[in-house]
Amino acid sequence: MERLMENWRSLKPSQRRAEFFALTRPMAEELFSRVSVLDRVELLEDLPDSEIRSWLRFLPPDDAADFIQQFRKEKHHDLLELLDEQTKHGVIGLLAYAEDAAGGLMNPDYIRLRPDMTVMESIQYIRAQPRTRVIYYAYVLDAYKVLLGVLSIREILLQPAEKLIKEIMHKDFTSVHEHLPSEDVALVFARNNKLMAVPVLDDAGVMKGIVTHDDIASLVQRETTEDIQKIGGMEALDAPYFNVGFLDLIKKRAGWLTILFLGEMLTATAMGYFEGEIAKAIVLALFVPLIISSGGNSGSQASTLIIRSLALQEIRLRDWWRVLFREIATGLALGAILGSIGLVRIVLWQQWSPMYGEHYILVALTVAFSLIGVVLWGTISGSMLPFILRSAGFDPATASAPFVATLVDVTGLIIYFTIGSLILSGTLL
Amino acid sequence: MERLMENWRSLKPSQRRAEFFALTRPMAEELFSRVSVLDRVELLEDLPDSEIRSWLRFLPPDDAADFIQQFRKEKHHDLLELLDEQTKHGVIGLLAYAEDAAGGLMNPDYIRLRPDMTVMESIQYIRAQPRTRVIYYAYVLDAYKVLLGVLSIREILLQPAEKLIKEIMHKDFTSVHEHLPSEDVALVFARNNKLMAVPVLDDAGVMKGIVTHDDIASLVQRETTEDIQKIGGMEALDAPYFNVGFLDLIKKRAGWLTILFLGEMLTATAMGYFEGEIAKAIVLALFVPLIISSGGNSGSQASTLIIRSLALQEIRLRDWWRVLFREIATGLALGAILGSIGLVRIVLWQQWSPMYGEHYILVALTVAFSLIGVVLWGTISGSMLPFILRSAGFDPATASAPFVATLVDVTGLIIYFTIGSLILSGTLL
Repeated sequence: MERLMENWRSLKPSQRRAEFFALTRPMAEELFSRVSVLDRVELLEDLPDSEIRSWLRFLPPDDAADFIQQFRKEKHHDLLELLDEQTKHGVIGLLAYAEDAAGGLMNPDYIRLRPDMTVMESIQYIRAQPRTRVIYYAYVLDAYKVLLGVLSIREILLQPAEKLIKEIMHKDFTSVHEHLPSEDVALVFARNNKLMAVPVLDDAGVMKGIVTHDDIASLVQRETTEDIQKIGGMEALDAPYFNVGFLDLIKKRAGWLTILFLGEMLTATAMGYFEGEIAKAIVLALFVPLIISSGGNSGSQASTLIIRSLALQEIRLRDWWRVLFREIATGLALGAILGSIGLVRIVLWQQWSPMYGEHYILVALTVAFSLIGVVLWGTISGSMLPFILRSAGFDPATASAPFVATLVDVTGLIIYFTIGSLILSGTLL
Repeated sequence: MERLMENWRSLKPSQRRAEFFALTRPMAEELFSRVSVLDRVELLEDLPDSEIRSWLRFLPPDDAADFIQQFRKEKHHDLLELLDEQTKHGVIGLLAYAEDAAGGLMNPDYIRLRPDMTVMESIQYIRAQPRTRVIYYAYVLDAYKVLLGVLSIREILLQPAEKLIKEIMHKDFTSVHEHLPSEDVALVFARNNKLMAVPVLDDAGVMKGIVTHDDIASLVQRETTEDIQKIGGMEALDAPYFNVGFLDLIKKRAGWLTILFLGEMLTATAMGYFEGEIAKAIVLALFVPLIISSGGNSGSQASTLIIRSLALQEIRLRDWWRVLFREIATGLALGAILGSIGLVRIVLWQQWSPMYGEHYILVALTVAFSLIGVVLWGTISGSMLPFILRSAGFDPATASAPFVATLVDVTGLIIYFTIGSLILSGTLL
């Protein structure tokens, strides 16, 4: 079993189906409960309804709702009919929520207690709820299902038998609103990693269900993967590498690559504008890749750093000026380091093989000052772009390393040739 | 409280201390139990021993061991003396493990049952263990502390009172070895996201402790952040952005930036080698940034994609040839797309403003074929480099977007000017 799970993600869909249907029923049930919703669809979609029914019964309502949501709307009714009455009722409630809100993630099945129960009565009551799968906490509700307090099962077990639930319940509990976006639900868990589940409430404080940490763990993993793929300069794949069809893979990569290419064409325009300078001083052309890539690299560093810090909420939108201040200082320092190395390199190289002409000191100064300017500019754009995207309502991760590099390439050329004109005018230019 | 946790990560250390010591004791205790080990050190390090003692008492043994591990070895003895006897004993055992092994992550405090207990006896026994903080599962041990089976607390609660534990325990449980590296422990949880805790065993199957999902969640988040920062082309920061000192920030970024810069200097050498060609056909220089950046961008996409898939084990090392095959096809397709756009752009532009000379068709073909070659090469290097690094024992995330871009820039220039010499020889060259 463990060995199969270890290889699961790297198997092809056909291999997965073969492995799955070769298992004994109890093993297959265990596997089915562990895999992702997409895997479940993949395993079941070609089976007859009676077979699908027997597997759907294993899923708690939130997982069943996720499963049904993978199909076209017209198919929902048929799939709902495969569920037993109680689950069906729960699933219909869940399908009404947006998939990416707390309500769409939650499980409507949880342990409810009354405030006037004793500890011993509660334990007996919990023992009588064999259907409830997830029990980390018990939720204390009033007659209108308004949430009054929360208790961990552990606390109930450890309290004297005759104590009343209302005496020992926590009234200062964490909860989320039913329409809270799922990324914000994830942050609630991130802020308190001892939290196993969080109650979902409506406007009136009425309890609707619970979101458990494992639903959130897979969500966070998925979102981090999306962020990383965006940082790499492509659309998020939404599926493991080998499960994405070839044409789909091309589509997800060609889109951004083409946009970046169109942006990068401006470098040809910029270079064309400086064609006269290049013709007079070919030596300037030699350093073009070095200059622009240094801007791109420092920009990649800055943007990646800020994207991740924003995602972890180590940095807030309102901190932008603190970041700007820090990144200007960083950019100047990094630019000075690279500029010095560049200067030394050209001067030393010239002694050994005099390829940069009589004005090599001026060329070296042009390169050094351009590096300071370009690295500073790369650092500033890389660090500010995620803030700008976030405030405009876009995903900061769109400020990918290639995106920032492209932006900095065009401006880097302008910085370089402008500094070159200033320093070299009267000698080479 | 929730509001404070929300802002916690973006506060400065001095602000955190101020907020923390302004809280009522119960609130402060709650906060202390939620924050990271580094935060705890930051809060306590300047306090007198008697104060530190009162806070350390709140920590379970694994957290106390983590705390002590943040200090120099010479200080360990003094800190251990602040703990009560039982915790001290547990912590000394934990300090013997490597920090990044299952043994170093585990909590030695868990619920032990005997196989011959009844369900009712077990419940009473669990109720009598008020010190044990984490209870998701109970572990059934023989007289030699060898693990025989596992039961969730929920299952115990739901079984008839007179059943024997050995009749209902699961013997097919997941466990980890005490010296298993922590990344591999994280994978055990990733493969089974319903798992709340995993038992840690020695060679003889003797139970040493449990690793809980929340220890792993923070570990995974930390490792993902490291990966993302490496992908961005810098050393991992190991702390939130504003907590890293300015000089440290420069150091972590300047290192890789300088290495990349030194690598990128080869572009100046390569350009110097083709100086004659550039002098004869300035038009070739105009497209240098466009060509090399396209290689870099396609390489970034490929490396980021593969790094993440390897981290999630969607792809194994042995899949390298399947990836290579797929990426060659992808690289050709992407190269063909960009090549066609480049070709059309040059031809159209020439009609409007004839800046590329009479041989513009040949120039356009040079650019188009170079784009195919460079994008193909970028895709291959980007996708294979993470595999090469992993098999050589390095972190695949070191194949950062800037690293791949630098690698591809130099070879991209060679590809471009070689194709240019072939196509343009006799006309422009």
